[in-house]
Amino acid sequence: MARLMIIGAGGVGTVVAHKAARHSGNFTEILLASRTKERCDAIAAAVEEKTGVRIATAGVDAEDVPALTALLKDFSPDIVINVALPYQDLCIMDACLAAGVNYLDTANYEPRDEAKFEYKWQWAYKKKFEDAGLTAILGCGFDPGVTGVFTAYAAKHYFDEINYLDIIDCNAGDHGKAFATNFNPEINIREVTQKGKYWENGKWVYTEPHEIHQPVTYPNIGPKESYLIYHEELESLVKNFPSLKRARFWMTFGQEYLTHLRVIQNIGMARIDPIIYKGIEIVPIQFLKAVLPDPGELGENYTGETSIGCRIRGLAGGKERGYYIWNNCSHEDAYKETGAQGVSYTTGVPAVVGALMFIQGKWKGPGVYNVEEFDPDPFLEQLASDGLPWHEEHDGDLEL
Amino acid sequence: MARLMIIGAGGVGTVVAHKAARHSGNFTEILLASRTKERCDAIAAAVEEKTGVRIATAGVDAEDVPALTALLKDFSPDIVINVALPYQDLCIMDACLAAGVNYLDTANYEPRDEAKFEYKWQWAYKKKFEDAGLTAILGCGFDPGVTGVFTAYAAKHYFDEINYLDIIDCNAGDHGKAFATNFNPEINIREVTQKGKYWENGKWVYTEPHEIHQPVTYPNIGPKESYLIYHEELESLVKNFPSLKRARFWMTFGQEYLTHLRVIQNIGMARIDPIIYKGIEIVPIQFLKAVLPDPGELGENYTGETSIGCRIRGLAGGKERGYYIWNNCSHEDAYKETGAQGVSYTTGVPAVVGALMFIQGKWKGPGVYNVEEFDPDPFLEQLASDGLPWHEEHDGDLEL
Repeated sequence: MARLMIIGAGGVGTVVAHKAARHSGNFTEILLASRTKERCDAIAAAVEEKTGVRIATAGVDAEDVPALTALLKDFSPDIVINVALPYQDLCIMDACLAAGVNYLDTANYEPRDEAKFEYKWQWAYKKKFEDAGLTAILGCGFDPGVTGVFTAYAAKHYFDEINYLDIIDCNAGDHGKAFATNFNPEINIREVTQKGKYWENGKWVYTEPHEIHQPVTYPNIGPKESYLIYHEELESLVKNFPSLKRARFWMTFGQEYLTHLRVIQNIGMARIDPIIYKGIEIVPIQFLKAVLPDPGELGENYTGETSIGCRIRGLAGGKERGYYIWNNCSHEDAYKETGAQGVSYTTGVPAVVGALMFIQGKWKGPGVYNVEEFDPDPFLEQLASDGLPWHEEHDGDLEL
Repeated sequence: MARLMIIGAGGVGTVVAHKAARHSGNFTEILLASRTKERCDAIAAAVEEKTGVRIATAGVDAEDVPALTALLKDFSPDIVINVALPYQDLCIMDACLAAGVNYLDTANYEPRDEAKFEYKWQWAYKKKFEDAGLTAILGCGFDPGVTGVFTAYAAKHYFDEINYLDIIDCNAGDHGKAFATNFNPEINIREVTQKGKYWENGKWVYTEPHEIHQPVTYPNIGPKESYLIYHEELESLVKNFPSLKRARFWMTFGQEYLTHLRVIQNIGMARIDPIIYKGIEIVPIQFLKAVLPDPGELGENYTGETSIGCRIRGLAGGKERGYYIWNNCSHEDAYKETGAQGVSYTTGVPAVVGALMFIQGKWKGPGVYNVEEFDPDPFLEQLASDGLPWHEEHDGDLEL
């Protein structure tokens, strides 16, 4: 018996709303809010059609902290799932503190004018949430999110210490468009075009964008060229698992996708600084987002699978061991259930599972937390029953 | 002793201002006008530094016909050289008619919302200019422009009838940028991404964009892959030379340039229909223009040459003959003289030469004309002495 408020009505918000509605025994009241109420209404109508559950909707600018605080006080949710834009994380955390509401998100805060992916801004809220007796759960999508839980699960059950972590993320789906990003294009392009970065022997090693790459074989998919990029969960994982000697993140990209990204940079459309056009400030990458296909609309006819997992090596009983834990998700199945594609699905479902963990008292505590700081077992059990089953392999040829 | 008004302060306007100032014996008063007076002032300062000639400047919106008419009446030029945007051609022609001023441009009118290159709109002004006793000279840049004069020159001196025309346009320059267009990116991208089209046996034949291509050898440059595209002078040339059995236009593009164009289309940034963004209408390709390098700023460090010419076959004395007439232009030399690169230079210089032809009474007559309708000889003589010498080859291996 809990009240849930969802902020954000993109592809991930769609999945969160559908999946939360399937837990109406736990989430007895659901409010979906975003800047454009009409988007919320359309999602609510689809949710009611699929599940019979009615969810409320509201229009609110997440950056208007007083307005958001008022809405939070009015609806008084037990927890907010924030799947709005990463710039808005701090505003939403401020409003949660002002209204006394617990918080969960799927992507870390980044300033509008810097393409950085760092937890420092949100970690700085630790004392505020402690003092308020509120819980904030950061990065509870798939990656970050399930990848951290997978790592915690491996460390808890199979290793005395984990030393090498490779998170491998493959989208072998085909959306049939010449070019589209699978989530918010602004964040996607920022993330993918930045310099590479990984952890080794106690420090960060930097690379040129896409400098390091190799084929990696994914279950049920086969070998795909995979590129070392920086991904935000590395920051919290190396902090929470200090035995890690090396931690890397790999993502697959097709040649055409990389060509499109290169051109987008060359022509200046990846710029995150505003230009003045027709007398107003416009950030090129944000304008590009408005022109590109909406990732929330990519689901139809999207075929193929995603495969995301963790390959880990470490010590167990004095011996070096290998372990691989992963999930494969079908774009078609995700679309049938929620009307959204697999990348939105794998991000939205773990957010709902994280919120369930909170309201069931399994993940709770005053302060600001990354997911690997909690018990992985009940989360993974719930995740599997909510459409994202996971698989594991011990030892084998896991070296990258 | 004549008064010249130039409208447009981009790269071509820069060249026109510099070159007109070198004819201060003919153009005793010069006014440079554009929407942004500051751009005109900067060009005027550079012209004065290089040539010692002072030119006046004014700010005017070329689409505000009453304001432009008032400015024309106030300055009362003998002729206007229009090197503003092609959408603005009809507005400027209207203002010229209202103020009783003769007119010359370098690119034909096209509506904002259709990527077409057709003379029909401007040819429809024929009677108005006739009735007003005014001359309008259309398309007097290099291509269209010199290419039409080259064709007229060949027809006048070397052929009884011309049957096959291939206009070949190569830019073998290197501006050192990852991607930039050599003239207004909006017009350039519209032109290059449209379907191909050529004239054969009395009708237009359409092709997919870049469907037909072959290597063509350019003087002093060598072989370069050349793509059949539609170019506006074909429309007037097949009308004015009805003996033409085939007329085609070829332009060189590098693979990287074509890749960039393909991606620009794929991501929706070549769209010419407006989207609503931040509450205002924005046309993606116009926004892209604001983000891309200004072609007027490309001159510095631009190396290499352009080569544009006409390969013609036809009958002379009952025999089939071949003829090739061309100009090569060095980007570096153009920059040294005017501070603009070769593509701006080859467009701007013929406009000044056309205006000289008019005020000297060599190209004149009430109505609307394309350049090939006038005597080519004095034009080419003047063109050669103004920095664009031309060369010719008879027979030889000219088959395309």
